Amino acid sequence: MSKYWSKLAASLTPYVPGEQPKDQRYIKLNTNENPYPPSPKAIEAIRKAANDELRLYPDPTCDDLRTAIAKRHGLTKEQIFVGNGSDEILAFAFPAFFSPERPILFPDVTYTFYPVYAKFYGIPYETVQTDNEFLINPDDYMNPNGGIVIPNPNAPTARYLIVDELERILRANEDTVVIVDEAYIDFGGRSAVSFINDYPNLLVVQTLSKSRSLAGLRVGMAFGHPDLIEGLNRVKDSFNSYTLDRLALAGAMAAIEDEAYFEETTRKVMATRERTAKAIAELGFVSIPSSANFLFVTHPEISAELLFGRLKSKGILVRYFNKPRIDRYLRVSIGTDEEMDQFAKALADIAEEAGRIDQ
Amino acid sequence: MSKYWSKLAASLTPYVPGEQPKDQRYIKLNTNENPYPPSPKAIEAIRKAANDELRLYPDPTCDDLRTAIAKRHGLTKEQIFVGNGSDEILAFAFPAFFSPERPILFPDVTYTFYPVYAKFYGIPYETVQTDNEFLINPDDYMNPNGGIVIPNPNAPTARYLIVDELERILRANEDTVVIVDEAYIDFGGRSAVSFINDYPNLLVVQTLSKSRSLAGLRVGMAFGHPDLIEGLNRVKDSFNSYTLDRLALAGAMAAIEDEAYFEETTRKVMATRERTAKAIAELGFVSIPSSANFLFVTHPEISAELLFGRLKSKGILVRYFNKPRIDRYLRVSIGTDEEMDQFAKALADIAEEAGRIDQ
Repeated sequence: MSKYWSKLAASLTPYVPGEQPKDQRYIKLNTNENPYPPSPKAIEAIRKAANDELRLYPDPTCDDLRTAIAKRHGLTKEQIFVGNGSDEILAFAFPAFFSPERPILFPDVTYTFYPVYAKFYGIPYETVQTDNEFLINPDDYMNPNGGIVIPNPNAPTARYLIVDELERILRANEDTVVIVDEAYIDFGGRSAVSFINDYPNLLVVQTLSKSRSLAGLRVGMAFGHPDLIEGLNRVKDSFNSYTLDRLALAGAMAAIEDEAYFEETTRKVMATRERTAKAIAELGFVSIPSSANFLFVTHPEISAELLFGRLKSKGILVRYFNKPRIDRYLRVSIGTDEEMDQFAKALADIAEEAGRIDQ
Repeated sequence: MSKYWSKLAASLTPYVPGEQPKDQRYIKLNTNENPYPPSPKAIEAIRKAANDELRLYPDPTCDDLRTAIAKRHGLTKEQIFVGNGSDEILAFAFPAFFSPERPILFPDVTYTFYPVYAKFYGIPYETVQTDNEFLINPDDYMNPNGGIVIPNPNAPTARYLIVDELERILRANEDTVVIVDEAYIDFGGRSAVSFINDYPNLLVVQTLSKSRSLAGLRVGMAFGHPDLIEGLNRVKDSFNSYTLDRLALAGAMAAIEDEAYFEETTRKVMATRERTAKAIAELGFVSIPSSANFLFVTHPEISAELLFGRLKSKGILVRYFNKPRIDRYLRVSIGTDEEMDQFAKALADIAEEAGRIDQ
């Protein structure tokens, strides 16, 4: 606390990102990174862009990248926005479309950055309870509201809401903006991007951090009616005109265009996910059906906090949230097959130590 | 205008960056870029960082870069903040230290992003008139206020305020934060960073875009008491935890450490600036004494708007602001000697065409 902080700054409860250990000795299953490297074409494009032109500002409109993204989805670049990670896009979307006058709605169990944005901008919010298995019920999003955020698949639960259900939410809320946060959509879900031409109140947000293995490059993208994209641009140009550097623009474009590599690596992650879910189920662990690159895992008798600590001592980092409703779960990112074998082996050992293995 | 925009989004008047022509046929003297390429060591560091580790998030605390910056200035990393360009740092500093309750002060002629930030965050402001030669008078900053922003050197005027005068402002405003925006300090001014240990209300903001030739990399830095740095971090972590990608971190660190290259290129820019000022003075043009990498130029008889258009038609882009008090001036970035010779030649031709050359 400092006398120089504004009341707002003093009142904030900032987001806490997952641990990023600097020694790198851990098997890192705690921040939903992709175990496979980025497309070699993306790395090559970045190396090529590392040249004397770095003395010049990047294109503030990011036209080439937006055009490439639009092309992939059969849209126009006026329907595309790009930002410094999907977090930045969400940070622009909240003040662009939500107001202090009316509360917005999002699930009670979800990405913990949503309430942080809301507090930062003074936007009131109500959380909507998910059911016992963390399912989102569209009927709960039919009341008057100032906007809606639906993460699909949800995090940290990994729960996917089929798009027909999502469409009911879009239809019932024609006067407010519905943000669908699809950070994890490429691991088995169907994207709401297919609705962009039908619903002017829909903003879909995605990231290159997970399915394109580019968490270190900081690029996110949003899809929406040109009016919504213009709203995002108005906020961006009141904040920072050049949010993507020349290297991020070049690498992102090459990654978007390398469809074959994207298909191959996401398929591998999904296969490993199913294999892991099966292996740990045999050890008595329960995971929520996942359409993401992580599992949300619990054990009926062993506490998640204990599991977290024992895994860490065995050199495996996962994410534990000490919060109501989810404090019996661990969020476990999908690594390589080898890493997940070690994870499953570690769980087996811990369960055995606990003397509670289900045989 | 869209019914989906928030009242705030609808009310914004976003910042308009200088033209970034995509065909690159112009001599580009309009966005204060450095005519020399970045340090070869920075480019090499970026190429090395373009590797498989891009799949991993960057260090959200940016410890290595902050340590390198701190070392250069004899400070500690707790006194350093880094961001996605100095624009982003300013966008975090406004809500961190300024409040809707009390108006902040900044010069009437200055960087046009300051009022944009203020409006975005609902922070009232009063502009303080600079004198006829655009000098800032410290006595004008002694009234009660909610914070102060002093650009030094100022833009677009290029005017430098000697740091002893700046110190008077710091001393008279112990209860509010004084941001000194030093985007252009490395071209001849003395930095207020030397006051960091003495004034807990001082935040100095700098950028790698100009003196390190890295406008395309998007890296800015701030210096202040650890309490102020913590305030910036609270806002950053309510907005986007990972604002600098792995490539920006690597390139920035190498650039900061290459002192010799920095000295050489800034010296060259300053020499070209003095040479250009002298050459155009001989043509009857008047420029404000500059401590920046640009000149603020006027002619007693030829309109700036006409000059701007004629220069553009001759393939030379400069910046013209159609605003009260400065609408007779052009802001001209310093290019290479060759580029500035062409610029001076173009001015001579235009003046001759206008039939008004002073002989």
